[in-house]
Amino acid sequence: MDDFRWPVRIYYEDTDNGGVVYHANYLKFMERARTEWLRDRGVEQDALIESHGVIFAVASAQMDFLRPGRFNQRLLVSVRPTLTRRASVVIEQEVCRVLENGEEGDVLCRGSVKIVCVDAVSLRPRPFPENVRREILSDR
Amino acid sequence: MDDFRWPVRIYYEDTDNGGVVYHANYLKFMERARTEWLRDRGVEQDALIESHGVIFAVASAQMDFLRPGRFNQRLLVSVRPTLTRRASVVIEQEVCRVLENGEEGDVLCRGSVKIVCVDAVSLRPRPFPENVRREILSDR
Amino acid sequence: MDDFRWPVRIYYEDTDNGGVVYHANYLKFMERARTEWLRDRGVEQDALIESHGVIFAVASAQMDFLRPGRFNQRLLVSVRPTLTRRASVVIEQEVCRVLENGEEGDVLCRGSVKIVCVDAVSLRPRPFPENVRREILSDR
Amino acid sequence: MDDFRWPVRIYYEDTDNGGVVYHANYLKFMERARTEWLRDRGVEQDALIESHGVIFAVASAQMDFLRPGRFNQRLLVSVRPTLTRRASVVIEQEVCRVLENGEEGDVLCRGSVKIVCVDAVSLRPRPFPENVRREILSDR
Repeated sequence: MDDFRWPVRIYYEDTDNGGVVYHANYLKFMERARTEWLRDRGVEQDALIESHGVIFAVASAQMDFLRPGRFNQRLLVSVRPTLTRRASVVIEQEVCRVLENGEEGDVLCRGSVKIVCVDAVSLRPRPFPENVRREILSDR
Repeated sequence: MDDFRWPVRIYYEDTDNGGVVYHANYLKFMERARTEWLRDRGVEQDALIESHGVIFAVASAQMDFLRPGRFNQRLLVSVRPTLTRRASVVIEQEVCRVLENGEEGDVLCRGSVKIVCVDAVSLRPRPFPENVRREILSDR
Repeated sequence: MDDFRWPVRIYYEDTDNGGVVYHANYLKFMERARTEWLRDRGVEQDALIESHGVIFAVASAQMDFLRPGRFNQRLLVSVRPTLTRRASVVIEQEVCRVLENGEEGDVLCRGSVKIVCVDAVSLRPRPFPENVRREILSDR
Repeated sequence: MDDFRWPVRIYYEDTDNGGVVYHANYLKFMERARTEWLRDRGVEQDALIESHGVIFAVASAQMDFLRPGRFNQRLLVSVRPTLTRRASVVIEQEVCRVLENGEEGDVLCRGSVKIVCVDAVSLRPRPFPENVRREILSDR
């Protein structure tokens, strides 16, 4: 099984005064990849709100910022679900560079993000809808 | 009449790879100042949603980025309402530096922002609630 | 001549409490499109800093926020240069929706952004490098 | 010893489509508080770059997002250094609400952020300048 990967380009908006990607922005890149991973499996989050009244909230995140990312670099963000429970899943993610020759380069950032399925109004935990759970557990 | 002014400090999050404040962030600074200007006049926007079902949307903005802002600088953001209509108001705003000695320095950015009062659900224009209109027009 | 267009997807990071795209983020979308338009014409901005010591700064922007953008929508951001001078260019840009059937939908935001070529250190205006100027003026 | 605390107000820019603070923004709030904590102890980061050629980089972060923050709420962000080493320090931080009556409310987010002192150009670890180290270790 290969992890899902989503390409991200580093723009000016992502960088800071230190000339590198501002650390908090890796959380944005990781969420984009999770959103596209779900979409790839047929799960649209706006449809989920309407059909099931649930959204996915980030409950915790352990992030390691290993190497600096710089303006204009191409990145790949991976998504690998682990520890799936009734209402939560832990996603392991890596952000790595894509080199000029198209090969994968260094890992810039590694994260472990816990997502909880919650009621869109009360924000209380709710079991994943069955089709979502099936897609998360599937390891095609 | 003196314009309302709100202090803003430039943090890493606000800067980009060019070593200066990322241009889009001046719109954030200006909105913070408008929010505090309303609060100073007793208008809390979260209360307005509940009491009148309206929110304030930005309809247009003309921005001039005159000089670079840099990490750690102190800024003052001014708010001056002009052209108040039934459901809209144009706010003239300036972002200027505060020098070491506490005096006002160069203007970094100047903006003219048109705010429209809209229904929180349909997002269609709605007249300002009477107390908001009075506060906006007041030139204490 | 057809305008250059760049696809953007609306993620959680782009939205606000009003359930729509936060207005300042349209400036980010427009800059992404300008960066990709330059790339499409062989102009890489990180290479420009090293070869010519110049960067592109946003000098002013006139933005009209016409309709709300919402989470998960697909957008297209257009780039059309006008008024090219020695050290500046005005870029007309539109952000429009892409409908489910793939056709172009409403324009959400329209902007006119003035870019100035500046020295990367002093931030003073400098003429565009010749190859950049040629590409900007070219209307393939 | 009392922890340093820095007030933060939640603006529209900080919220997302779910009606709550976007998770990545807590990292921004925490960095603002660390910057002000250093300033409170006489350490200005822009001066440090010039005098010692060092900047502070975030090496890792463990974040727990406990309760939702909402538009217009007042927050307090605490800073407590632990595990200070030659070139790194772990900072324990909490983001808690300030209630209407001015008392401290629930903790919304808890984080443990590892900061490394690095060379501003090479980004390699460098020992903290002596005065910075003294201030970090001091528990007034």
